[in-house]
Amino acid sequence: MNGVLALDRVSIVLVRTSHPGNIGASARAMKAMGLSRLVLVAPQSFPDPVADARASGAGDLLAGARVVGSLEEALRGTTLSAAITARRRERSVPVKHAREAASELLGHAEHGDVALVFGTETSGLSNDEVALCSMPVCIPTSPGFSSLNLGAAVQVMSYELRMAALAPSAPPVQSDLAAFEDIEGFHAHLERAMTASGFYDPANPKRLLPRLRRLFGRTRLEREEVNILRGILGALERKPD
Amino acid sequence: MNGVLALDRVSIVLVRTSHPGNIGASARAMKAMGLSRLVLVAPQSFPDPVADARASGAGDLLAGARVVGSLEEALRGTTLSAAITARRRERSVPVKHAREAASELLGHAEHGDVALVFGTETSGLSNDEVALCSMPVCIPTSPGFSSLNLGAAVQVMSYELRMAALAPSAPPVQSDLAAFEDIEGFHAHLERAMTASGFYDPANPKRLLPRLRRLFGRTRLEREEVNILRGILGALERKPD
Repeated sequence: MNGVLALDRVSIVLVRTSHPGNIGASARAMKAMGLSRLVLVAPQSFPDPVADARASGAGDLLAGARVVGSLEEALRGTTLSAAITARRRERSVPVKHAREAASELLGHAEHGDVALVFGTETSGLSNDEVALCSMPVCIPTSPGFSSLNLGAAVQVMSYELRMAALAPSAPPVQSDLAAFEDIEGFHAHLERAMTASGFYDPANPKRLLPRLRRLFGRTRLEREEVNILRGILGALERKPD
Repeated sequence: MNGVLALDRVSIVLVRTSHPGNIGASARAMKAMGLSRLVLVAPQSFPDPVADARASGAGDLLAGARVVGSLEEALRGTTLSAAITARRRERSVPVKHAREAASELLGHAEHGDVALVFGTETSGLSNDEVALCSMPVCIPTSPGFSSLNLGAAVQVMSYELRMAALAPSAPPVQSDLAAFEDIEGFHAHLERAMTASGFYDPANPKRLLPRLRRLFGRTRLEREEVNILRGILGALERKPD
């Protein structure tokens, strides 16, 4: 199973959510990251038109949401579950950071169902609820202001799950890079033009040529770009006065 | 300077935001991740009680927000800027992913001011606005549903900036980068010189100017390099025959 398929095995569990807008925002955040399973534990108001409005295109996740009465029921059948908590330590259990937890959850999702559990807007999860889960997880925040909106927390975790799902891929590469000799031809042309114009004095070179090589060396010139640059130089050399 | 302090040099720039709730949500997302500089380009409604309500404890960021009339004004003084776009390719410029871009921005923030630019809720940034920035950046989303809420996008990028700040070692970066206005001055000079020499015909621009922006945008020009390039142009313009 590849990572993106494993996203289908991840449930987002929202416990006793107060504001239906946050349920809608969570559905949209999930869908944008390729997640589909939403579980609601005793939501205060659901279904609700405010949730539908905030879902904005992710109404299918709301329609397919499983509504249950307790966290135990929500977690039944999962092999690994993470409790999102603002506290950095839970009863002396070390708390994993979001990125590490997402990677671990996704790895397990290749073999079975997993869950990410979010508490209420005002007080999060109770200690008993955290204890029901396999591990406490926190999203790193500023020590002075750790107040994340519920939908925003779901967004960050869903994003981390997607990043974990994307297999390490080759970095994007440019095509049509200029050949060594094309670039050398450009540098020679530039030097001629600078000399003829008086900007560059070969008898007193300073560090001008190495600096220009460094500049254009960084940019990985394409063949067509070398042609443009030489076209500009040629036109400036011929410039009518 | 350590990474967390560098977060103070990062501006979040919201361009022509329609819904004040998204401005409030962005402020809260920023503050939770330790960011403080909010810049609003021609917001549809600001200040606004809806923004205040959604900021929920981050009202100080709203109170301190800088409101300007144009993206150029917002970017003045920055040395690196990232345009958030849903498109995976911008006019054949490779688009960086959120994580890589956050790391690059934060590295540069140790030496100067940087900006992250977000467009409108419905249509994002225009091509011209993307071209004003140093690099296009996308947040990886599901191919079938790439619709991120504006506040959620700010949340993800702010989170990635914080994660980059917490990273043990920032990658080495160039110092002494040219400021936005210096680079704009160079492009204006280049256009004048190309026009005067006949290489560039403003009546038939083809894609010459965007191509040159792309070329020099990739290379992260330093201040001194801009001086050299303008010196070359000036000398060629004055060239004795």
